[in-house]
Amino acid sequence: MMLLTGTVIADAETIIADGGVVVTGSRIEAVGERSAMVAEYPSHDERQFGIVMPGLVGGHVHSVQSLGRGIADDTELLDWLFDHVLPMEASLSAEEMRVAAQLGYLECLESGTTTVIDHLSVSHAEEAFEAAGELGIRGLLGKVLMDQRSPDGLREDTEDGLAESRRLIERYHRSFDDRIRYAVTPRFAVSCSEACLRGARELADEYENVRIHTHASENQGEIETVQDDTGLRNVEWLHEVGLTGEDVILAHCVWTSEDERQLLAETNTNVTHCPSSNMKLASGIAPIEDYLERDITVAIGNDGPPCNNTLDGLTEMKQASLLQKVNALDPTATPAPTIFEMATINGAQAAGFEKLGALIPGWKADIIGLETELTRATPLHDPLSHVVFAAHGDDVVFTMVDGEICYEEGQIQTINGDQVRAAASAIELPSAERHEPPASH
Amino acid sequence: MMLLTGTVIADAETIIADGGVVVTGSRIEAVGERSAMVAEYPSHDERQFGIVMPGLVGGHVHSVQSLGRGIADDTELLDWLFDHVLPMEASLSAEEMRVAAQLGYLECLESGTTTVIDHLSVSHAEEAFEAAGELGIRGLLGKVLMDQRSPDGLREDTEDGLAESRRLIERYHRSFDDRIRYAVTPRFAVSCSEACLRGARELADEYENVRIHTHASENQGEIETVQDDTGLRNVEWLHEVGLTGEDVILAHCVWTSEDERQLLAETNTNVTHCPSSNMKLASGIAPIEDYLERDITVAIGNDGPPCNNTLDGLTEMKQASLLQKVNALDPTATPAPTIFEMATINGAQAAGFEKLGALIPGWKADIIGLETELTRATPLHDPLSHVVFAAHGDDVVFTMVDGEICYEEGQIQTINGDQVRAAASAIELPSAERHEPPASH
Repeated sequence: MMLLTGTVIADAETIIADGGVVVTGSRIEAVGERSAMVAEYPSHDERQFGIVMPGLVGGHVHSVQSLGRGIADDTELLDWLFDHVLPMEASLSAEEMRVAAQLGYLECLESGTTTVIDHLSVSHAEEAFEAAGELGIRGLLGKVLMDQRSPDGLREDTEDGLAESRRLIERYHRSFDDRIRYAVTPRFAVSCSEACLRGARELADEYENVRIHTHASENQGEIETVQDDTGLRNVEWLHEVGLTGEDVILAHCVWTSEDERQLLAETNTNVTHCPSSNMKLASGIAPIEDYLERDITVAIGNDGPPCNNTLDGLTEMKQASLLQKVNALDPTATPAPTIFEMATINGAQAAGFEKLGALIPGWKADIIGLETELTRATPLHDPLSHVVFAAHGDDVVFTMVDGEICYEEGQIQTINGDQVRAAASAIELPSAERHEPPASH
Repeated sequence: MMLLTGTVIADAETIIADGGVVVTGSRIEAVGERSAMVAEYPSHDERQFGIVMPGLVGGHVHSVQSLGRGIADDTELLDWLFDHVLPMEASLSAEEMRVAAQLGYLECLESGTTTVIDHLSVSHAEEAFEAAGELGIRGLLGKVLMDQRSPDGLREDTEDGLAESRRLIERYHRSFDDRIRYAVTPRFAVSCSEACLRGARELADEYENVRIHTHASENQGEIETVQDDTGLRNVEWLHEVGLTGEDVILAHCVWTSEDERQLLAETNTNVTHCPSSNMKLASGIAPIEDYLERDITVAIGNDGPPCNNTLDGLTEMKQASLLQKVNALDPTATPAPTIFEMATINGAQAAGFEKLGALIPGWKADIIGLETELTRATPLHDPLSHVVFAAHGDDVVFTMVDGEICYEEGQIQTINGDQVRAAASAIELPSAERHEPPASH
């Protein structure tokens, strides 16, 4: 039995100044004043922090792109994708893919993200599943499907991709004590045929809790391509082929029409907002305030290291609030409590993990501890404001997933972090050369 | 003689993979390959870092607002200013102002900012000058002038404000080995009469290297007020009363007309961009790409902790690039080298310190060392990209100003950091209550 004490932010509405969270096994046993917890649970192992809060949910990440951190900054989108990111993904061996995933999960756990909704790559997806199991992170992971308009090394036969997805579901869905679940993951409508998209829906429907995760309406060129192909706007097309609904996570949704927003709301489709990625790739500013007003579940994601360049979920919370404020010219837009929910319980809901995203007795013990004896945290008038607007991932000193300590005292506990970093630094990526975006099929 | 080694980013164009910087007294003696430096300067005290680079210049900060970190997040601008920030400034005793400035400079030095262009408050400005001297930071500091439309406790007689400014110039301009210089600092046109603004220019002109620092065109309401008062747009009005020129730093310049942009360029007026502040207060997106095309010198600033909420200059570099990219819908906008110059040499030029902002023999030894043995820095393909897009202030492990080590091994060297943080946490701020913005005069 472990007692985690400090200012407890149980959820956006519940803050206990001198609080404690009791953990037994993989679950939260009790939450309350520290003094009450100490009295009620005398036999405990106590750890003290500045702030104790739920682990963050990274609502859209590309862990296996971690090796591409900084490879294509300040670059036009198509060059970024076709000259750098896709060739890198296509080039990685199984062993390199394992290192890439380890590096991504390592950065997440070190900086307070305990659950990822992770868009892997076409090949070697099992390496990421194994890495997630090994490092101890929680995740909704999926092998990527690409059966058209995709470079050699990534494009695969429609049925092969779906068959491999099925194999991975059978092997990894609800594996590692149900920490790891599966999302069928078409890359995006541009690179997936109608058969592929419809097949993804059919496959997901065959299994309980298997979800669907894809990119949608990130930039205007993508939408034009889908419209040329199908006569429909991107989200309309996804809806047409079955890829909306409460088991679907759409990353980005920057450019959506009124009709599409209604569709997202009516179908309870989840949206993941990636503000830094949308800024860095110059995609645009997603209408998050509007989505929230429609009661669409919006999570926050860091996307991948080539487009962010970090997986720091705490700084991404600030970014999400600031970008909506300046877009609306309204400093009250998406305030700290809303952001906190987006980064925790909304993400958990999008990922489909039950009893996750807040510190509530009986819920999953995915908890982080933050250092606040810092100049940047002084004075600390409002813990929620501090977490959203001033904290960095570097402040995280303790990360627990499912009751297991994954990160503590500056060291990942489940793997040798130095070895992962050394292996990652040693991998040579293919040099950038122009790979023209292939025509359809 | 000290030798600082690592990947040396001497300026945006000059990166030495295994480099060294030799420091003698307050100056840089030599810069080159480490092996050459070791051979040429055998008697040295070597310190090794991941990256060695110029200290950042915070082109617009409010160090003395540090006590207000997080006091008014998600708040309408006028409430933010008149209910929270101005009452806080008005309430601080001399002793509290000292602590506020210490806290601000402490955060700057810990996170890599070695020079500040600092907008103090109306009263107790000497406390900040003393704190800057004590902590060892370099700065262009100024007492604030407010002689109209200002709440009680801040508004002062025009001549009194100018006389106190003169007293501070005589006492502190070029003090502390010329680390500290003076900027005459009208708050902004709204709260300063014509006599005050013209008096500021006359005062600055009496002294060599005394500059002028004010806010301009941060939000649209401000511009309307100035236009109602004067019949001119804000920057036009400042020009009319003498507050443009190469010795003037205008913070923000979010909303400027074509004519005003031409004025800024023709007069070589310096602009400081504060992207996070402009986002959080929902001021708008400054046309920085346009300013840079016109060869206007643009620096980067964190503004104050109540509107940012940190003084981390490294994360602000990322913010500046990302905000321009999404605004232009162009991922190549304000790339890493441009940002690096804005945060270093442009800031130095705006502040008027000669031979500052790059690592060049004979230049001032204002140097920082960054840790790169971090997951977030792995892999590290491009040091400049890493600094701009992935590094945080937390990565700074060494800060030298004028050849003196101010921060090392997690501790500020010039003061007791724990005492400053404890004192700052103990200060009670006035509770927020509505202070109507006073009418003119």
